[in-house]
Amino acid sequence: MLRFLLAAAMAVAPAAAQPFPAEAEEAAATLMARALEDETGYQVIEDLTTEVGPRLAGSEAEARARGWALARLRSMGFENVRVEAFSIPFWAREGEALRIVEPFPQALRITALGGTVGTGRRGVTGEVVRFESLGALMAAPMDGSLEGKVVFVDEGMTRTQDGSGYGVAVAKRSGAAQEGAKRGAIAALIRSVGTDQHRFPHTGMMRYEEDGEKIPTAALSWPDAEQLQRAMERGPVTVRLDLSVVTEKDAPSGNVIAEIPGRTDEVVLIGAHLDSWDLGTGAIDDASGVGITTGAAKLILDYVAETGEPPLRTIRLILFGSEEVGLLGGKAYAEAHADELGDHVAAAESDFGAGRVWQLETRFAEDAQEAGDRLARILAPLGVARGGNEAEGGPDLTAIAEAGVPVVTLKQNGWDYFDLHHTEDDTLDKVDPDDIAQNVAAYAAFAWLAANAEEGFRGGEATQGAQ
Amino acid sequence: MLRFLLAAAMAVAPAAAQPFPAEAEEAAATLMARALEDETGYQVIEDLTTEVGPRLAGSEAEARARGWALARLRSMGFENVRVEAFSIPFWAREGEALRIVEPFPQALRITALGGTVGTGRRGVTGEVVRFESLGALMAAPMDGSLEGKVVFVDEGMTRTQDGSGYGVAVAKRSGAAQEGAKRGAIAALIRSVGTDQHRFPHTGMMRYEEDGEKIPTAALSWPDAEQLQRAMERGPVTVRLDLSVVTEKDAPSGNVIAEIPGRTDEVVLIGAHLDSWDLGTGAIDDASGVGITTGAAKLILDYVAETGEPPLRTIRLILFGSEEVGLLGGKAYAEAHADELGDHVAAAESDFGAGRVWQLETRFAEDAQEAGDRLARILAPLGVARGGNEAEGGPDLTAIAEAGVPVVTLKQNGWDYFDLHHTEDDTLDKVDPDDIAQNVAAYAAFAWLAANAEEGFRGGEATQGAQ
Ligand SMILES: [Zn+2]
Ligand SMILES: [Zn+2]
Ligand SMILES: [Zn+2]
Ligand SMILES: [Zn+2]
Repeated sequence: MLRFLLAAAMAVAPAAAQPFPAEAEEAAATLMARALEDETGYQVIEDLTTEVGPRLAGSEAEARARGWALARLRSMGFENVRVEAFSIPFWAREGEALRIVEPFPQALRITALGGTVGTGRRGVTGEVVRFESLGALMAAPMDGSLEGKVVFVDEGMTRTQDGSGYGVAVAKRSGAAQEGAKRGAIAALIRSVGTDQHRFPHTGMMRYEEDGEKIPTAALSWPDAEQLQRAMERGPVTVRLDLSVVTEKDAPSGNVIAEIPGRTDEVVLIGAHLDSWDLGTGAIDDASGVGITTGAAKLILDYVAETGEPPLRTIRLILFGSEEVGLLGGKAYAEAHADELGDHVAAAESDFGAGRVWQLETRFAEDAQEAGDRLARILAPLGVARGGNEAEGGPDLTAIAEAGVPVVTLKQNGWDYFDLHHTEDDTLDKVDPDDIAQNVAAYAAFAWLAANAEEGFRGGEATQGAQ
Repeated sequence: MLRFLLAAAMAVAPAAAQPFPAEAEEAAATLMARALEDETGYQVIEDLTTEVGPRLAGSEAEARARGWALARLRSMGFENVRVEAFSIPFWAREGEALRIVEPFPQALRITALGGTVGTGRRGVTGEVVRFESLGALMAAPMDGSLEGKVVFVDEGMTRTQDGSGYGVAVAKRSGAAQEGAKRGAIAALIRSVGTDQHRFPHTGMMRYEEDGEKIPTAALSWPDAEQLQRAMERGPVTVRLDLSVVTEKDAPSGNVIAEIPGRTDEVVLIGAHLDSWDLGTGAIDDASGVGITTGAAKLILDYVAETGEPPLRTIRLILFGSEEVGLLGGKAYAEAHADELGDHVAAAESDFGAGRVWQLETRFAEDAQEAGDRLARILAPLGVARGGNEAEGGPDLTAIAEAGVPVVTLKQNGWDYFDLHHTEDDTLDKVDPDDIAQNVAAYAAFAWLAANAEEGFRGGEATQGAQ
């Protein structure tokens, strides 16, 4: 059925004044059809999550993930497979516990937020003061009213398809500790940034303000946040928080890169992040992205081998390191490749789980909108609609997008993403192979078309690579 | 609507030769209607799970639960509120971890099975040998072929409404360690006895054979069992198991009892178990049963106060201690009350979660079947159908049922029960107040009718209490 739709879509395509050559569009249709029958993407996800498992930024496990990726990409036949190394400040959890001490002694399930300080061996004990939202805490006077207290920012998160609830909810991840400390609090707890109702706390990076007091901070699972709230409805509640963490100034990380060489110096970039949080195996965040983009690149690689015709531009696959701890791989790439960014024609990162792509967003120049429209039309048989022109492209592309590289977001259905995001429960069984294949199809078509487009997407370009 | 149905059901009831007096049936209808509007049952569940939380058999938390129950039942106005103390062998988990050592180093989520021995500080390290089922392990030769190995019984569990999948699956909980040890294994792992696909291992009691070798044993969550299986598909896998446990010979436990005195020495018993596993707050197992039966008893208590007419027989509410570790509260009750069991007219325990009652099973004498049929007809407006006559009555009633006490099972929908059973995720948020109210209605009607039935349910009885 889809194969028929693809053929029909191609058949009605006008022949002239198009952003993509007709042969490139035909190749894209072939790649999409093959992708839907191909299991490479899913297999990569399975292998990475099984053979490496959790792979915390800067850890020995992340190093093993790089080794795994190098071997895998080389055996697949990619060119210029390499690691671009950089180093990062390392943080890891060692132990974490929260107990209600009074009046209802019991353990609550928490997880330390990435970057938090530890509590020391004696823990931190104090009465809990609850705030409905970060805004409510920020509205509290800076008069030492929270001196010696444990603040609890009990703010929920709205479930949305596009993940827009995350941006709102995530502010408390740093904000609770920052704003609590300013008011004299000794620790900060938050209701997890997540949408599930299971007993899985969600981790994620937090930051202290420079020169601000650093107080330990952790997230409660949804049921535990409810439990703490219920306990507090019955009167004052004292808790004891124990966090122990390990930090190092310089730990090794790196981006793994592989290429399908083109006929020019221009580059189309697709990628995902290789690191994950330590709690789960990072199947949806972001082994899925690794599988999707590697699967797409492999289909193109095989197509090129079959036809003997390389793409106009080089297709570069990047598996970024240390995304979770501050988009460090993306920043390192932007720095290392600052000189060539002008030759980067387009980029897209897959980092929103394992759901199907439902929308194509672009960030192209005004006079390159036709290319975006055409791209969406080619992807339409996959169930992809045209979105707006304010794409972010993916977290690790933030720096290069700021430097002017046109980016695309193949937006995935994120309805369930924050049920699992940054929890222990982020494991392979949550990934549907058919949904991955649909993503692979979209990335393969996008990468091939961008790599063979008549012009770039920066506008006002007469020739390739012109700025 | 239900109120109308109840009235209609009563209106068509024949007037003569019935097992229950007409006034008792009218009172039952009133109690059912009130139950559906009453929140006491749910409130008890909330209070117990919040104000006590987890309450492991023999622990200080279980003692707090008894104190909580005494105070609550007294303040509700019950008579003869008391603890019947007994002591138990105590077991508690202290630490638990499983790691793949080779070839894919990573942690897997496990929980120690109740009663297991520890591994010692150095842990137990060995190659994993997987068996599809306990039967497959039992079919393995007793020739030392598992010498130094870690057995892994990777048997699933079938989801059913009536929980019948549990009986099959639970055999491996003791069987893996028993049968593994006989063949020289040094540790035993099982896929959790549960139906969910989240990263929650399910605990539960295991037993060693007398004079058998005791090897440490633990359960993997569903995703971790899948992960171990996937790792093993790639070649030999070595794991390290670390379990540390605490045991004591004699720890205090007890049954909490409250009564609505009747006009004779005969007794109708309803109850649930007060203890829970340590991982969750035991909301569905078995604070729900505590709430359901306490809520039902309280409705009757209020009705009696209102009418000034006590029931014919005493209604005794029992909150059993130490069910989870071997039905010890039920056994202690049967022993302590051996002399009066002949006066126990009927008994029912609620211990299958928070789902709605859909069937009434009895274990009545052949010539008391009419009473069972009539009872089912009275409960029909609640959505309860007549089941068979092989009721078990509930785990803590096993001993008294064997001693001849007629039992009833108000069978609940257990479709989701084993998703949460004996996991961390067994928390209050999984309990629906409306479903609890329906259970309370069924228990209130049952208890009142049994306490006022014309005759008992043992058959051949001319007068009350005759054996
Ligand atoms: Zn990510
Ligand atoms: Zn992430
Ligand atoms: Zn139970
Ligand atoms: Zn149980």
